[in-house]
Amino acid sequence: MGKAGGISIHAVDVSTGRVAAGLAVELHRLEPAPALVATGTIGPNGLLDHPSAAGEGITAGLYEVRFDLGAFFAAAGREAPFLDQVPFRFHVRQVAEHYHLPFKFTPFGFSLFRGA
Amino acid sequence: MGKAGGISIHAVDVSTGRVAAGLAVELHRLEPAPALVATGTIGPNGLLDHPSAAGEGITAGLYEVRFDLGAFFAAAGREAPFLDQVPFRFHVRQVAEHYHLPFKFTPFGFSLFRGA
Amino acid sequence: MGKAGGISIHAVDVSTGRVAAGLAVELHRLEPAPALVATGTIGPNGLLDHPSAAGEGITAGLYEVRFDLGAFFAAAGREAPFLDQVPFRFHVRQVAEHYHLPFKFTPFGFSLFRGA
Amino acid sequence: MGKAGGISIHAVDVSTGRVAAGLAVELHRLEPAPALVATGTIGPNGLLDHPSAAGEGITAGLYEVRFDLGAFFAAAGREAPFLDQVPFRFHVRQVAEHYHLPFKFTPFGFSLFRGA
Repeated sequence: MGKAGGISIHAVDVSTGRVAAGLAVELHRLEPAPALVATGTIGPNGLLDHPSAAGEGITAGLYEVRFDLGAFFAAAGREAPFLDQVPFRFHVRQVAEHYHLPFKFTPFGFSLFRGA
Repeated sequence: MGKAGGISIHAVDVSTGRVAAGLAVELHRLEPAPALVATGTIGPNGLLDHPSAAGEGITAGLYEVRFDLGAFFAAAGREAPFLDQVPFRFHVRQVAEHYHLPFKFTPFGFSLFRGA
Repeated sequence: MGKAGGISIHAVDVSTGRVAAGLAVELHRLEPAPALVATGTIGPNGLLDHPSAAGEGITAGLYEVRFDLGAFFAAAGREAPFLDQVPFRFHVRQVAEHYHLPFKFTPFGFSLFRGA
Repeated sequence: MGKAGGISIHAVDVSTGRVAAGLAVELHRLEPAPALVATGTIGPNGLLDHPSAAGEGITAGLYEVRFDLGAFFAAAGREAPFLDQVPFRFHVRQVAEHYHLPFKFTPFGFSLFRGA
């Protein structure tokens, strides 16, 4: 079996122009075998530092990343009147490919297009 | 009790530059009283034509819109290797305000910032 | 000759979730006959209120919208360390079509996909 | 004098989900000393491979990146009815910082928020 390309998660608060250091993130596989694949916080380089980014634990399936924006803004003393727990759901169909997820958010919305 | 401002949903396939006529959409309230608030398809003007856009059935709470991109692309004979059922979750805290949700998508990602 | 569909300009500051009332905007035709087509400020509904939105003065050609984010942020006492005068350049090839330009910005970037 | 952080340019065609290999890009300084700082094409990793990404030739000032989408789509036999030469203008005020510019485009629009 070939190696999985992995899922890398990058997060930037585009209302401040800074990477979202400290943002809590969970990566779940929803199908076919539900599992919490990764959990952690965004580091000072904007990335979730976890072996899943290099493929560990990644198999073909349906995934969901959950970004805890509510806690992130609360920790900074900012309000989060609109977004709170943000899910992003996607398929990994070509497991040998790398899936880069660049998450650009404000308290009022986000943009996430597969990076490569 | 004042009138609710409503939730309007607009969808554009920005890979083709066309409004996503025919895209199936569901609007759910998740909390405090779970309910399927609206269901339908995007019309030729890009909007979900439903009374919830004018406030009917909208109370303060946590909502989730679900966009069925998998079926939309399949109906057009296009592949959907990445996005399929897309959830977008948000709070309505100021029920008198209008919530406009402009959803700009491709098969590989989307942008949604509250419109007003 | 058929009527032009027009160019409508909508602007939202997605760092605050509010329409960019007061933002100065210019619409220029660059080719074939350079002209300042419209100038004004975004109104409380998020739109530039100008007859060009209904087609007046719009012919096929290359256009550029200029958003004066520097002055907008300065007027609010906010810094604008990155974006200042923002140009957005595009062709109107099918003059009978309507061109809707929804501009979603923060001090650090923007998203603009033709709305319809 | 400290070293400049540099300007890195990354481009993804989010209508196809692929990095924009072959896309021609120019990086100009507009002020205070106008210069063509870099020119080249996006490589297979999505980046413009040029020493300016590591700081060479970067001083504080106003910059403009130009993405030649018209030629990129034409080379692929695709139409470019809306976007053609795309300018993106920004200030480098803190020259020691790195400026990452992730450009996500379709033929009908784009998203670019400073990456870090």
